[in-house]
Amino acid sequence: MKLATLRSARPDGQLVVVSKDGTRFVSAGRIAPYLQAALDDWDNAAPALEALAVELDTGAIAGQAFDSAAALAPLPRAYQWIDGSGYMGHLERVRSLKGSKDEELQSVRPMLYQGGSDTMLAPTDPIIVPEDDLALDFEAEVAIFIGAVPMRPSREEAEAAIRLVTICNDVSLRRLVADDLQNGFGFFHAKPSTVFAPFAMTLAALGDNWRNNRLHLPLRVEVNGTLYGQPNAGIDVHFDFIDMILEAARTRRLSAGTIIGSGTIANRHDETLPIKENGIGFACIAEARTSEKAKFGAARTPFLKAGDRLRIAAIGKDGQSVFGDMDNLVQTAG
Amino acid sequence: MKLATLRSARPDGQLVVVSKDGTRFVSAGRIAPYLQAALDDWDNAAPALEALAVELDTGAIAGQAFDSAAALAPLPRAYQWIDGSGYMGHLERVRSLKGSKDEELQSVRPMLYQGGSDTMLAPTDPIIVPEDDLALDFEAEVAIFIGAVPMRPSREEAEAAIRLVTICNDVSLRRLVADDLQNGFGFFHAKPSTVFAPFAMTLAALGDNWRNNRLHLPLRVEVNGTLYGQPNAGIDVHFDFIDMILEAARTRRLSAGTIIGSGTIANRHDETLPIKENGIGFACIAEARTSEKAKFGAARTPFLKAGDRLRIAAIGKDGQSVFGDMDNLVQTAG
Repeated sequence: MKLATLRSARPDGQLVVVSKDGTRFVSAGRIAPYLQAALDDWDNAAPALEALAVELDTGAIAGQAFDSAAALAPLPRAYQWIDGSGYMGHLERVRSLKGSKDEELQSVRPMLYQGGSDTMLAPTDPIIVPEDDLALDFEAEVAIFIGAVPMRPSREEAEAAIRLVTICNDVSLRRLVADDLQNGFGFFHAKPSTVFAPFAMTLAALGDNWRNNRLHLPLRVEVNGTLYGQPNAGIDVHFDFIDMILEAARTRRLSAGTIIGSGTIANRHDETLPIKENGIGFACIAEARTSEKAKFGAARTPFLKAGDRLRIAAIGKDGQSVFGDMDNLVQTAG
Repeated sequence: MKLATLRSARPDGQLVVVSKDGTRFVSAGRIAPYLQAALDDWDNAAPALEALAVELDTGAIAGQAFDSAAALAPLPRAYQWIDGSGYMGHLERVRSLKGSKDEELQSVRPMLYQGGSDTMLAPTDPIIVPEDDLALDFEAEVAIFIGAVPMRPSREEAEAAIRLVTICNDVSLRRLVADDLQNGFGFFHAKPSTVFAPFAMTLAALGDNWRNNRLHLPLRVEVNGTLYGQPNAGIDVHFDFIDMILEAARTRRLSAGTIIGSGTIANRHDETLPIKENGIGFACIAEARTSEKAKFGAARTPFLKAGDRLRIAAIGKDGQSVFGDMDNLVQTAG
């Protein structure tokens, strides 16, 4: 099934079940008022939500027209957001920027950072930065919503805990990355609120697009209508979501509603921007820039600035946007 | 007023109002079922909770006997936990351990890390570590619960956002600190779940124990009944809670229910353990050990191990435990 959260008076929004084609929805309020409530009681809530989804898809319930402008992030605020480093291609391209040294360790265990989870941006929210010169970048990723996991779970426990999948944009202020990592306690200012696509889907609903604990779909990224990348999230995965869960639970248990990100999707290639219509390209600007530095001696692609429009979607075999689009305008505060 | 959260079937527990002397409570369920709900609607909830507190304190409501063994953390799960570096004395003592270099920067802006907030430990929960050799340490701190704050707030907005105060123990696995900071993305494995005292109090209830955006009370720390420290949280504060809020909101807004920690309380002195009954001592073991290294050439005080019992309390002028005790037994998993 496909779930979404619509704006309401409540900060957590209103949980709805969405039709397979993403065009219609029905309120799930009689089962769970908002997604965290469903995740807290998943064994009871999930079968009831699935039954509602069947009624919607068969037409037994007409539903209402779904408008992604009314959607919040599936969890507009979450108790935990952990972002990982699943794609070594991303680390290899941006390692010099991050000031991190230990290449060997990074290939043995996924790096994780604890991200801010109190405010997740809606699919069509503006991305508001305090100043225009902070080197605003996006990072297109896959994200999972999990159930509770004990400290040091088995692989089976980790696998069974995956509840829902979506895509997100780990918004990054590149100018603040080195400062956060070298002088302080890790990522903080460089990682403001993350954007989420409207639909969170079960593994069953993803069918063979979900295999081996990873999503096998390309994420299409456009800036102001120009294609920047369409890397496949199932290719060049060094650490999958089971690796992420096992690593995250090394010294702690994880609560229901924890969101884990794949890290910036990166496929290995030697392209630079602009890419051809069948090119692979990049899921963040930093990689495009380091590739330009290597090839031309200098970066050419600018970071995002006020007025830029960013669109990210996972594209299914039928050409449809599987999780709905993230379509965000960049704004400067004030 | 004094608020607490009692265990219930709900993961968020049950909000109660506690009498000034900490001995009796009354359910706040008719006003807000749990603390996050009160923080989400503070302007309406706070006056009603205050009125209930008056009824309890005057004896108009008899209430029930408060048992801290039934208490959870005030927010058993939170949308954000940010820990800062308010006391330069702590940084000066442990800097070599953390592998951080930029002393100058650390005195200009507070360092902050994004902590895990999905599981906060109750005042009497065991502290469960996966292995006994991870150099388990405590960090006694002051913590505030805030309302929503916009990006880059004024000092006045920051000050007005402080809702409640308590104390906490930022549990730390010292053996994993350098690994987290030097090779990865910042604190993660080294910072498992944080312990909270049972009572969260308004600034009004703290009276002159809260002045200049800081708590003016000593925190008494005992390990297995031996006094390790009683530093005063109001002394040697380099960054107060307004500095912390302003820093945390540099690139983002902060949601209601965000918890901010002061960092390990540290008063300047040249003592080592054992301290006298009127000594100052330490609010973490790492500082005691680095002081021993400086004085004796080697650390003497061991880190915590399974079976150790840790007790932390803020002591009022009347000798009472202002926020209630954190009284935790260390256990190894499995």
